[in-house]
Amino acid sequence: MKLLRVGTAGAERPALLDAEGVLRGLSGIVTDIDGTVLADADALGRIRAAADSGELPVLAADGLRVGPPVARIGKVVCIGLNYYDHARETGAEPPAEPVIFFKAADTVIGPDDTVLVPRGSVKTDWEAELAVVIGRRARYLESHEEALAHVAGYAVAHDVSEREYQIERGGTWDKGKNCETFNPLGPWLVTADEVPDPQALSLKLWVNDELKQDGTTAEQIFPVAEVVRYVSQFMTLYPGDVINTGTPAGVAMGQPEPKPYLRAGDVVELEIEGLGRQRQQLKDA
Amino acid sequence: MKLLRVGTAGAERPALLDAEGVLRGLSGIVTDIDGTVLADADALGRIRAAADSGELPVLAADGLRVGPPVARIGKVVCIGLNYYDHARETGAEPPAEPVIFFKAADTVIGPDDTVLVPRGSVKTDWEAELAVVIGRRARYLESHEEALAHVAGYAVAHDVSEREYQIERGGTWDKGKNCETFNPLGPWLVTADEVPDPQALSLKLWVNDELKQDGTTAEQIFPVAEVVRYVSQFMTLYPGDVINTGTPAGVAMGQPEPKPYLRAGDVVELEIEGLGRQRQQLKDA
Repeated sequence: MKLLRVGTAGAERPALLDAEGVLRGLSGIVTDIDGTVLADADALGRIRAAADSGELPVLAADGLRVGPPVARIGKVVCIGLNYYDHARETGAEPPAEPVIFFKAADTVIGPDDTVLVPRGSVKTDWEAELAVVIGRRARYLESHEEALAHVAGYAVAHDVSEREYQIERGGTWDKGKNCETFNPLGPWLVTADEVPDPQALSLKLWVNDELKQDGTTAEQIFPVAEVVRYVSQFMTLYPGDVINTGTPAGVAMGQPEPKPYLRAGDVVELEIEGLGRQRQQLKDA
Repeated sequence: MKLLRVGTAGAERPALLDAEGVLRGLSGIVTDIDGTVLADADALGRIRAAADSGELPVLAADGLRVGPPVARIGKVVCIGLNYYDHARETGAEPPAEPVIFFKAADTVIGPDDTVLVPRGSVKTDWEAELAVVIGRRARYLESHEEALAHVAGYAVAHDVSEREYQIERGGTWDKGKNCETFNPLGPWLVTADEVPDPQALSLKLWVNDELKQDGTTAEQIFPVAEVVRYVSQFMTLYPGDVINTGTPAGVAMGQPEPKPYLRAGDVVELEIEGLGRQRQQLKDA
């Protein structure tokens, strides 16, 4: 299923994109799409039955804002340098074990919302990523099978990054990853049953219609199952938590000088096979 | 005022410790202590008026669990190496600007709850810290005065840290800061009006009754006002967000070999002048 949330920011309503691409309201079935619903097999079963019945109310999609597909996200764990081609372009060795950093959940916005260039920023960069949404509490998972059983679904994430803040201002990467609006997510949460192989998805990102990233999750150094298993050794994952699993080659930082960092007025579009497409206009904060 | 939350985990009720040290219930005034209440001058005024009236119901404190003093914390921003004496003991240069890392809000527990030593951990360490609780949305603050005006209050935080995960496993410090139960907070949120000088507070921490940390916020490299101002340049702070402002000297990592890292059965107690005292027993995860 493709689950989403539509409406003005902070007042989104749950919805479903059906097999024919028709937007249908889920407000009669669940109050929202969040960790509680994703962990509730009964609630998911009711959604599925309602979808199959074909009787869910059709919503007028025109002009309707799409919000992030999950409400009340607890935390956003991010994996750094997780694609062979991206590690090469940044001049970094492929890491021996996953690199973990964080984005605050309050950086998450809808897939087509405005992204703000931080005041004084000269190195705002893009990163198309496959996001994993957790469906069951996960701690000390032992196998890849067990890890995948804790995944509710997948979504497109844009891990917007300020490289000066991330790398040149001391401390951890978090400083360049948590600016306001820095994590567009969605449009949909595609349930895991509809993504049979998360390691065979193409990712593409364009800036002002120019293709910048053209990768595949087959290039991930640590596949989704290993990322979830690994992260669960260091922290407990809860339903509704999100893991951004890293970005392929093609970011601004990896390009020759003058590097084409983002500025107000730029338009970024990104897409993952089967998971939908985002479009953000950049503005000054 | 000293605001707190009492009751079983996940079902805490708001309360107040009055000037005579009597615990009084606030459920008749507000539903909880969270960012919404902290940002609401009317709600805070109603709490203050009720406290002054002396008519709030007295709660039986015996055997009552104390939870974290703020519900629905959005994010926990942490400042690393923020005391001259702690930077020296770790062999690090005092940083030129604040070092930022994160703890997930789901690591926050009550001040006397059990702390879990992660499976396989051999370097679980303690860090007594002054926590700042944000009361107003803060972005691009320009002065120290403005920064302090965005602080709702202060609390004791224990920034439990796994040094191997933090330093030896690649990537950012976050890997050793986000284990389950790693952020005891409380007992109280002491409102900012009762903490006239946050740079003149003594911090103490004991392990099994032995004094390990005996510091003062006067040793902070970046004082609270600068920390809040600085962080707001990189991310937006929201009511109910928490900033752990760093730890003074005396952590296990800074001591001679064999370093006395924490193990199941150990008892940690910590205290900040005027902000109360915590006591945690360590158990295996």
